[in-house]
Amino acid sequence: MDSDKKKTTIVLFSGDYDKAMAAFIIANGAAAYDHEVTIFATFWGLNAFRKDAAVPVKKGFLEKMFGWMMPRGANKLALSKMNFAGMGPQLIKHVIKKHNALTLPQLIELAQEQGIKLVACTMTMDLLGLQKEELLDGLEYAGVAAYLGEASDARVNLFI
Amino acid sequence: MDSDKKKTTIVLFSGDYDKAMAAFIIANGAAAYDHEVTIFATFWGLNAFRKDAAVPVKKGFLEKMFGWMMPRGANKLALSKMNFAGMGPQLIKHVIKKHNALTLPQLIELAQEQGIKLVACTMTMDLLGLQKEELLDGLEYAGVAAYLGEASDARVNLFI
Amino acid sequence: MDSDKKKTTIVLFSGDYDKAMAAFIIANGAAAYDHEVTIFATFWGLNAFRKDAAVPVKKGFLEKMFGWMMPRGANKLALSKMNFAGMGPQLIKHVIKKHNALTLPQLIELAQEQGIKLVACTMTMDLLGLQKEELLDGLEYAGVAAYLGEASDARVNLFI
Repeated sequence: MDSDKKKTTIVLFSGDYDKAMAAFIIANGAAAYDHEVTIFATFWGLNAFRKDAAVPVKKGFLEKMFGWMMPRGANKLALSKMNFAGMGPQLIKHVIKKHNALTLPQLIELAQEQGIKLVACTMTMDLLGLQKEELLDGLEYAGVAAYLGEASDARVNLFI
Repeated sequence: MDSDKKKTTIVLFSGDYDKAMAAFIIANGAAAYDHEVTIFATFWGLNAFRKDAAVPVKKGFLEKMFGWMMPRGANKLALSKMNFAGMGPQLIKHVIKKHNALTLPQLIELAQEQGIKLVACTMTMDLLGLQKEELLDGLEYAGVAAYLGEASDARVNLFI
Repeated sequence: MDSDKKKTTIVLFSGDYDKAMAAFIIANGAAAYDHEVTIFATFWGLNAFRKDAAVPVKKGFLEKMFGWMMPRGANKLALSKMNFAGMGPQLIKHVIKKHNALTLPQLIELAQEQGIKLVACTMTMDLLGLQKEELLDGLEYAGVAAYLGEASDARVNLFI
């Protein structure tokens, strides 16, 4: 009936493998049902958008330290529960493959193929010293104002 | 004015006692105000819907392991903060009783009495090897598409 | 077009510095774009509203214990990730200042200046034994019914 029924936004705050999976499963589902979908990655959620290889960029000491400490890319994220020093994510990836489900990197790829808008929060990038070269190609860059613009128009708005 | 004002959906991703309490307090409140309410339990949130006794079902090794490691039912969930190796939940249950508030199992029972739709995410059941026999009676079973169908129509959509 | 486009509600469940920051950045942004904004602090989220000095009030033993164990005010909250025994929050505050961004106490002050409704969940106050004297001035006090009243009318509803 009204246009806003077909819009979904997700703030991806969490940098946990399982929570990011949930975010991208909902997002891909919504896109498959013709929603216009935006994922706005902020704080630790940005780690899901890092490239998995180190990218040589100039940084200060603190920014380098954040870069080392935070997981580099979707495949390296930890679980929010039962992480068991990294064994948990391996287990989850194992059962994902066994059930022919999609891993997080595959879910992100599918999101890009489906035209889901992936937005990196520029304020977080500033704070944590992440640079565009270190993040996936095809992202958009914006702040909270852009997120609110989308969310005000959307029906399903989640913070994950 | 328009029909969707009276619909609330909650994705219960978390398997923490306190977060599940918040989810069911909001859900029961919404139902009391005549909202049509759906709780879609996914990932660790499904543990809130497990029966508290072991149910003999046939499982592979990994599925058995998940079954052992994950809390069996609402009463066994841990706190998201100040869990103190299980002392936290005891403290919370103590103050809940002291204030004549409802425990999580009671909140879930009330939700069922109020006709709140409790949905178990079938994809998570597959991944973690949980079977219908191990979950509470009276649940519905569905995937992300069913959740999105409800959420697109609802006004209050939360991810907990 | 319709009035509800301009209303945002946030349930602040989390007592983590970074999550509370995200909540207040979104809330302040929404207020700047003329949304009517409500932050409903419940469970650990209430800690963000505690005064940072001890306030002499009469309490039972359990309530005193909760009072001691929980962080006293926004400046003392821990990070949800990379807390490193308190070093994480120091690092974050350091980069916040370096980038001329606002700390959490400043974001809360701004929220009050912008007329954002800050509501303390009275059920949580009962359970954890927090009293009005221990919380910031200018708060409102209400339960889940009041939250639902706002959320049913709002477009952007988040649980953080």
